Amino acid sequence: MDGAQGADVTDQDMGSWSTLAGLRAAIRSGAFSGHTAGLAPGKLQCNIAILPEAYALDFLRFCLRNPKPCPIVGIGETGDPALPTLGPDIDICNDLPRYRLYQDGQFAGEVTDISAHWRKDMVTVALGCSFTFERALMAAGIPMRHVEQNLTVPMYRTSLPLVRGNMFGGTMVVSMRPLRGGDVPRAVEICAKYPHAHGAPVHVGDPAAIGVTDLDMPDWGQAVHMRPDEVPVFWACGVTSQNALLSAGIPLVITHAPGHMLISDIDEDAAQPVPKP
Amino acid sequence: MDGAQGADVTDQDMGSWSTLAGLRAAIRSGAFSGHTAGLAPGKLQCNIAILPEAYALDFLRFCLRNPKPCPIVGIGETGDPALPTLGPDIDICNDLPRYRLYQDGQFAGEVTDISAHWRKDMVTVALGCSFTFERALMAAGIPMRHVEQNLTVPMYRTSLPLVRGNMFGGTMVVSMRPLRGGDVPRAVEICAKYPHAHGAPVHVGDPAAIGVTDLDMPDWGQAVHMRPDEVPVFWACGVTSQNALLSAGIPLVITHAPGHMLISDIDEDAAQPVPKP
Repeated sequence: MDGAQGADVTDQDMGSWSTLAGLRAAIRSGAFSGHTAGLAPGKLQCNIAILPEAYALDFLRFCLRNPKPCPIVGIGETGDPALPTLGPDIDICNDLPRYRLYQDGQFAGEVTDISAHWRKDMVTVALGCSFTFERALMAAGIPMRHVEQNLTVPMYRTSLPLVRGNMFGGTMVVSMRPLRGGDVPRAVEICAKYPHAHGAPVHVGDPAAIGVTDLDMPDWGQAVHMRPDEVPVFWACGVTSQNALLSAGIPLVITHAPGHMLISDIDEDAAQPVPKP
Repeated sequence: MDGAQGADVTDQDMGSWSTLAGLRAAIRSGAFSGHTAGLAPGKLQCNIAILPEAYALDFLRFCLRNPKPCPIVGIGETGDPALPTLGPDIDICNDLPRYRLYQDGQFAGEVTDISAHWRKDMVTVALGCSFTFERALMAAGIPMRHVEQNLTVPMYRTSLPLVRGNMFGGTMVVSMRPLRGGDVPRAVEICAKYPHAHGAPVHVGDPAAIGVTDLDMPDWGQAVHMRPDEVPVFWACGVTSQNALLSAGIPLVITHAPGHMLISDIDEDAAQPVPKP
């Protein structure tokens, strides 16, 4: 989310990216490898986890039992890079700007194309993403401090328990955005409209109550400045699923690089993350 | 839904069933084996499908891609009859009033306890159910004809396409309730609040447009009388998943008997079908 875009970006490129098809083509060709915050406004963006089929059922169980941090919005056939319900032409091997590889729970590299790493037993799972509710909050005039300051949103490990799915478990990871007290109720109402994008916040106020000891020391992302009239507001975060995948130490997992999401064809406002009939 | 209750029901029994714990105990012991419509008001009731693990991943993919007819609200570990997110003490072998067994896609009997049929490779999947939105509609003063007439709601095969999940596919099954035109918008708004229970209707009006040729000849359930000031309103139906399971002809599937649902501990109004934190 720190905004390093592909080099040699011209005004002409930027123009072609203003359509979903143009943007996807630019990502697919490698012309665009930057973060996706603010791109294709109104389209559902997705966290991506790609893992061997042997672990897919347990991972789905884990996500289904923890829908606030892990809202499943799409799934591929085993060995097939398509995600038909999220877009008719999606090829998950090329349609993220940037990927991370993990082997046995350890970081193993960052790439912009995973064709060489794809296997016949891989299954793609797509989860909703905070960009959706952030856009809705900003559209309602509720400022996002980390966006104003061009920082990655701060994320924290918590003591909030998850329901296990065999080898997948742990505690919830949350993201934090400081809000003025008067904005909190409206923010909750707005976010509740997006259950596929983490929904309403999980906690407002005292960080210690959810096991967060120091807001200035996030476990991921960067600390943001809190003003005296603000309270910290915590949302369930998609890093929860990545954390669970890595902790399980499974042989190969491919994810989006932070902030480099799949941009789907689905409208963020859709009641269900599937194509219109 | 045709209301055949267990024999020898006394007023004392009815009293103990007024609590969720009492009702579950009566179902578990076999004292109650009737349909569950109207019982434990406000608690989420569930369609149940129990199938071998070898088919579970594909079935989940099918459900996740078709969330209107197949909204997943819970899933068990392989070989474990518990459903921890739907209730801390649920034992799926005994906690439905009545089950149906299917072998190789063929009906193979109806029982009130599946302990003898449970296997170490079985996986339980729970899907939301129309009782939830029917209760909400009736609470809002919108009458349900099939309830007034003590009939099973009429259900129809349609031409509405589903997204396949390997061996699982077909077309959508819908249920139909006649509504006065003036009640339709409010009914849509109310049902939209329950995405875990099929959500808003999928079609209003002309049956032929969705491939239903004769409302008087439902494929399941019983025809209901339509009045001149009413339009037929169609909802995605949980029988879609049963239909897909049976059409796939997999070796063993256990489902709830029609109308004999799992009564969970989850509040119907919960934003997510998981226990409160």
